[in-house]
Amino acid sequence: MSVTVVVGNPKPGSHTRRAAEMLAEQLSGREADETIELSELGPKLLGWGDPDVSETKDRTASSRLVIFASPTFKATYSGLLKLFLEQFSGGTGLEHIVAVPLMLGGGPTHALAPELTLRPVLAELGATCTSGLYLLDSSFDDGVVIGEYADRWRPMVQALFQGN
Amino acid sequence: MSVTVVVGNPKPGSHTRRAAEMLAEQLSGREADETIELSELGPKLLGWGDPDVSETKDRTASSRLVIFASPTFKATYSGLLKLFLEQFSGGTGLEHIVAVPLMLGGGPTHALAPELTLRPVLAELGATCTSGLYLLDSSFDDGVVIGEYADRWRPMVQALFQGN
Amino acid sequence: MSVTVVVGNPKPGSHTRRAAEMLAEQLSGREADETIELSELGPKLLGWGDPDVSETKDRTASSRLVIFASPTFKATYSGLLKLFLEQFSGGTGLEHIVAVPLMLGGGPTHALAPELTLRPVLAELGATCTSGLYLLDSSFDDGVVIGEYADRWRPMVQALFQGN
Amino acid sequence: MSVTVVVGNPKPGSHTRRAAEMLAEQLSGREADETIELSELGPKLLGWGDPDVSETKDRTASSRLVIFASPTFKATYSGLLKLFLEQFSGGTGLEHIVAVPLMLGGGPTHALAPELTLRPVLAELGATCTSGLYLLDSSFDDGVVIGEYADRWRPMVQALFQGN
Repeated sequence: MSVTVVVGNPKPGSHTRRAAEMLAEQLSGREADETIELSELGPKLLGWGDPDVSETKDRTASSRLVIFASPTFKATYSGLLKLFLEQFSGGTGLEHIVAVPLMLGGGPTHALAPELTLRPVLAELGATCTSGLYLLDSSFDDGVVIGEYADRWRPMVQALFQGN
Repeated sequence: MSVTVVVGNPKPGSHTRRAAEMLAEQLSGREADETIELSELGPKLLGWGDPDVSETKDRTASSRLVIFASPTFKATYSGLLKLFLEQFSGGTGLEHIVAVPLMLGGGPTHALAPELTLRPVLAELGATCTSGLYLLDSSFDDGVVIGEYADRWRPMVQALFQGN
Repeated sequence: MSVTVVVGNPKPGSHTRRAAEMLAEQLSGREADETIELSELGPKLLGWGDPDVSETKDRTASSRLVIFASPTFKATYSGLLKLFLEQFSGGTGLEHIVAVPLMLGGGPTHALAPELTLRPVLAELGATCTSGLYLLDSSFDDGVVIGEYADRWRPMVQALFQGN
Repeated sequence: MSVTVVVGNPKPGSHTRRAAEMLAEQLSGREADETIELSELGPKLLGWGDPDVSETKDRTASSRLVIFASPTFKATYSGLLKLFLEQFSGGTGLEHIVAVPLMLGGGPTHALAPELTLRPVLAELGATCTSGLYLLDSSFDDGVVIGEYADRWRPMVQALFQGN
């Protein structure tokens, strides 16, 4: 099972990345095979057909488990992440992966955003989605919420990918 | 694997029921073990603790695969179905089931409603959800859309419940 | 300007009612003309055409400002409120009113629910909607959040209904 | 009353722009004062503090009526539009404007997207929002749907801005 982390934070090396990598490890039992910082693609995401974007897209779609991680901007996921998701084909672009919608925020009032805003776009691309997870910037790194979430969803991930 | 159909149409014997039973059979390979017409519970759903409601709730939560089916009223699922879902515990009430959000409507303009309105409430109850499915009242019974959806999600259902 | 409060809490005399009446008074400058406790209609809401329901519906649709208030059940508004909203005509049933989507909850994590779940169904009925307001059960009655919200939206309400 | 059109289509001179300009004129009775093609800002939207972006942001926030127009990508508005909206302050950035959420799509199945996905982010920025409008790429330019929508919302726009 190949595991990928996609980070939709404009700032590299963010909490978003750290949380997503912790979650990937908790869900799969080992470190993510790859972390993609979308900020590195930058302006290449503003059009269609860039070769670096295409390659990144292909690596994502051929993974088995992908954490799509974003900070919470204006009560929803980042435009940077959306630019990347727009590169995939509707209905089928992510149909072979399990996608985890993860968002981090400064306070609890946007906690419904991963389920109500990020998960639907991943579903539109055909992914099998776990429930949306929202983490607080200030406290995620104690691992408690991440651990509980991983315990809930690990059996599904393992059942779907056993032997692969 | 026990398979249950929950019908949130105020009118018994509806297209909603028919479509849900077709989908249950396509997903699981055999007829649903039980179809629950919420209209039969009627006023008992307006409070908490009714013994008939409790029993129905327990049968639902102990199933493996449940189709939650509703007509589309005002661009979302029915109040009747919501009354039933309110009976379950938040976060855990449906945590052992795979829930399928199914809605039927008269035209295509409400096609996003299962994904954006019904699936989130099933997720809030802890269920593992497939993507929302929207069917047209006028054409679902040719089985084409139901068949394509079942082909997409049958492997997940089987992987999660093999041997059970 | 006639002002109505619609309370979708199954329990009469709730915090939901109290908060909605405070908000109505803050927005309009005087007490609500009427408070409708949907729990009093109970089973009559499970069908169509009941005369008490029809009369209540007509009084609501002929108001100018209506607070639609609900507790938060499973991260969205109550099934009881939905049953009432299903009685109105799609697109036009509430087209002459300003509708305020108000929800109360036990904690902050469902704060996006009024905007993302209740407001869309009011919009589907044709209403002019203010932004969704979420209040904490434990602290709304100090009036601070209600007051800030009323200050934001009072000018719109007054501009729309001046002289009426 | 100053009227602005914001176009979130990566391709300049799009149907999105044409539809938004038609709607602006129908709602306000005259041509839009300005049309902003976000594609012209391009990579400048990927960070914060760019002077061209700041100026564009200020012109938008000081308008009275703004059409926020986007194509439908993956069942929601474009990442390009989201990048621009992220530039505004949460809660207050658009509090003095009436914002119209407009989306165009190739077919009817995404018709709920403006109301359920675009309007909430405009509301999060403090705007007074009309209901979301969805138009078909293939038929909007006969002006029928735009005209009906403008008839519904013109009185509100005029009441809020009379004399201004």
